Amino acid sequence: QVTSPSGEGTDAVVILEKTPFQEEKVLDLLKKHTKLELQMRNDIYSTYHLYPPPELSEIKTTVVYPATEKHLQKYLRQEVHLIRETWEDYKNITLPFIQSQSFSIQWVYNILEKKAEADRIVHENPDPCDGFVLVPDFKWNQNQLDDLYLIALVHRRDVKSLRDLTAEHLPLLRNILQEGKEAVAKRFGVPASQLRIYLHYQPSYYHLHVHFTALGYDAPGSSVERAHLLADVIDNLALDSTYYQKRALTFALRADELLLKKFQEAGRV
Amino acid sequence: QVTSPSGEGTDAVVILEKTPFQEEKVLDLLKKHTKLELQMRNDIYSTYHLYPPPELSEIKTTVVYPATEKHLQKYLRQEVHLIRETWEDYKNITLPFIQSQSFSIQWVYNILEKKAEADRIVHENPDPCDGFVLVPDFKWNQNQLDDLYLIALVHRRDVKSLRDLTAEHLPLLRNILQEGKEAVAKRFGVPASQLRIYLHYQPSYYHLHVHFTALGYDAPGSSVERAHLLADVIDNLALDSTYYQKRALTFALRADELLLKKFQEAGRV
Repeated sequence: QVTSPSGEGTDAVVILEKTPFQEEKVLDLLKKHTKLELQMRNDIYSTYHLYPPPELSEIKTTVVYPATEKHLQKYLRQEVHLIRETWEDYKNITLPFIQSQSFSIQWVYNILEKKAEADRIVHENPDPCDGFVLVPDFKWNQNQLDDLYLIALVHRRDVKSLRDLTAEHLPLLRNILQEGKEAVAKRFGVPASQLRIYLHYQPSYYHLHVHFTALGYDAPGSSVERAHLLADVIDNLALDSTYYQKRALTFALRADELLLKKFQEAGRV
Repeated sequence: QVTSPSGEGTDAVVILEKTPFQEEKVLDLLKKHTKLELQMRNDIYSTYHLYPPPELSEIKTTVVYPATEKHLQKYLRQEVHLIRETWEDYKNITLPFIQSQSFSIQWVYNILEKKAEADRIVHENPDPCDGFVLVPDFKWNQNQLDDLYLIALVHRRDVKSLRDLTAEHLPLLRNILQEGKEAVAKRFGVPASQLRIYLHYQPSYYHLHVHFTALGYDAPGSSVERAHLLADVIDNLALDSTYYQKRALTFALRADELLLKKFQEAGRV
């Protein structure tokens, strides 16, 4: 809890993340003002505690302030439950829930309207229907390619998630796949064969977006119960325009999430 | 390369690993001699570079010295490449490759015939066509449920992988899903809603098997470019018996894998 200027207690979320080593700084790490303590030795193997100087051990810090109850819930550790959501479940439980919540996605609109992060845009297709903006994700500090993470945000504002997609959206999705790959290769030198490109279901905000992460990076949310490869989504829609209005979809919900309560009340868990 | 006392150059392997935060030291991290630099601000979100004092940013260091060529190979980073395999690729490249290799799966037959690990069997459906055996995976020591990992091995020996599956296999797959969930709940007390149940493509051996892992466990091979939820596989086959003989499938191959070479020779990478 942080005390605001008005004297009221206000919550903040502080996220601390250790970042991958930068290759060009490893030599420094092994020399520069580095304290080394032997821990164990056995045959050709030995282990040490190494205490690096501050400038070589940056911690990525994200602050959400002021934080709402929802922000706090999002980051607390929770038991998870797998849901298998049919289309009827979506219509009767999930969609009314989404509509009843007033998730703010002002920060997305700020990016799309160049009111924030305009200098961070890696690529844009300005078409209002089939266009998108590609930006580095907050989670990536851009110091090394190991944990490369970008997000494509679509310009149109009427697509909430995977569930809304039909063959109508194929040009948009193909633009994201093709232009996104090209832009990442051009700007960061990472070829398409080293990229995991996918959507989340459930997403963390209901404005359609696509994740681009380094294939070698075990990115949070890239596991099978949450991620859907964009290439698969495109093929499924090309096969059947109403694929995502028919198929059951699996996702995990934390014990404290309101949507889980809705599924429980409906007798679906 | 390190110079040995004899004057010869001798290789060493040095492994540096950042360790998880210790909960009781986080408060110190936010106060004690900690330099903070603002990186970006948007609405209620801001990111910083935090430079902690050395004693709060220990790096676990392992040294192998002198290191043999085998040690070096083990720790060298292998690049991974994503393949999008069409059905034609499967028939022309992957299938001939599988058939040319004499992967030994005697250990699988030993389990199915009770010649090995008979006392480890958690559940069996003995039907030769629609039956299977459920055993703990080698990777799980069964000491704690956090990393629970079991494998269902099918009795029939004519199904290599996902690519061979049609609607004919639906009874088998449904048995695995239903009986597997029940057996894990009964033996280990883990309910179905806490289980990730999936197939690998490519699998590491070509005798059909299904993975059961704890949902909270970030199991290797559970990411979207390798795992296919059994519930999705069943629904896809129910929708279209030849789904897996039509659809392109994505998987990753390491630079030193022979199958990657086959795709390169065929001009598909």
